[in-house]
Amino acid sequence: MADFFFEDFIVGEVKTFGSHTMTEEEIVTFAREFDPQPMHIDAAAGAKSVLGGLAASGWHTCAIMMRLICDGFLLRTAGMGSPGVTENNWLAPVRPGDTLTLRRTVLEARTSKSRPEMGLATFRFELVKPDKTVVVDQTCVIMIGRRNPGARLA
Amino acid sequence: MADFFFEDFIVGEVKTFGSHTMTEEEIVTFAREFDPQPMHIDAAAGAKSVLGGLAASGWHTCAIMMRLICDGFLLRTAGMGSPGVTENNWLAPVRPGDTLTLRRTVLEARTSKSRPEMGLATFRFELVKPDKTVVVDQTCVIMIGRRNPGARLA
Repeated sequence: MADFFFEDFIVGEVKTFGSHTMTEEEIVTFAREFDPQPMHIDAAAGAKSVLGGLAASGWHTCAIMMRLICDGFLLRTAGMGSPGVTENNWLAPVRPGDTLTLRRTVLEARTSKSRPEMGLATFRFELVKPDKTVVVDQTCVIMIGRRNPGARLA
Repeated sequence: MADFFFEDFIVGEVKTFGSHTMTEEEIVTFAREFDPQPMHIDAAAGAKSVLGGLAASGWHTCAIMMRLICDGFLLRTAGMGSPGVTENNWLAPVRPGDTLTLRRTVLEARTSKSRPEMGLATFRFELVKPDKTVVVDQTCVIMIGRRNPGARLA
């Protein structure tokens, strides 16, 4: 039984969840499998790139964000999957030693007319470093089961 | 020395590249690390979910797409990183045994006024199954070095 349902996500609410510290080994391991561009697997190549040093693949950063979303609240939420991401900006390089925290803002919440058992919540997810630098800024829609389907069709 | 520069990406061009066949093992391994929602790690939970069976994390699908982008052309291109994704839709579940091919459409190509050594190409990337089902549809901007910086500032 989930702890959180659609009704628990209040538009405007901002919360932070968890943290993850990146290691060089995990950055290189992910990149070798999924995104073997030189700046993600080799420090010298990274130094010569626009990233100015070895930096994680943007897709690795998104995957880390997803893990923080899961551990922060989604695994305890009546989640029903996601249709997609409407925007994802990689704003700053993520390097070995960087500690990333998830910041979640509820942008929008609307019930589904065709599927009254669920609602659609639009979140802004950001990964933030201790110095307040935002490294990724994403807008994502998640389908979430309602606590009392049919109680209201706002 | 790269084979492909900004000038080689022609608006309207559509090409397909490579393929990857998903295994249950890799779906579960990725999900356990980054997206341990029940429908991505357990077949019985998947069957009860909106996905109708075990299915890959959307972030895994994006990572596979990135690998096909790298192997298809990006590792031979004067790529300079990506500012982000303007849209990413997960349209259909990706299951063990699914073979995914990358389809690339060049949507837009513009030179940078502030940085004449590069251009910005906007791509539509899709992963397509043999039955033509599109499982992910993404619009992504990639910064690409110009062959002859300064030759024209269109």
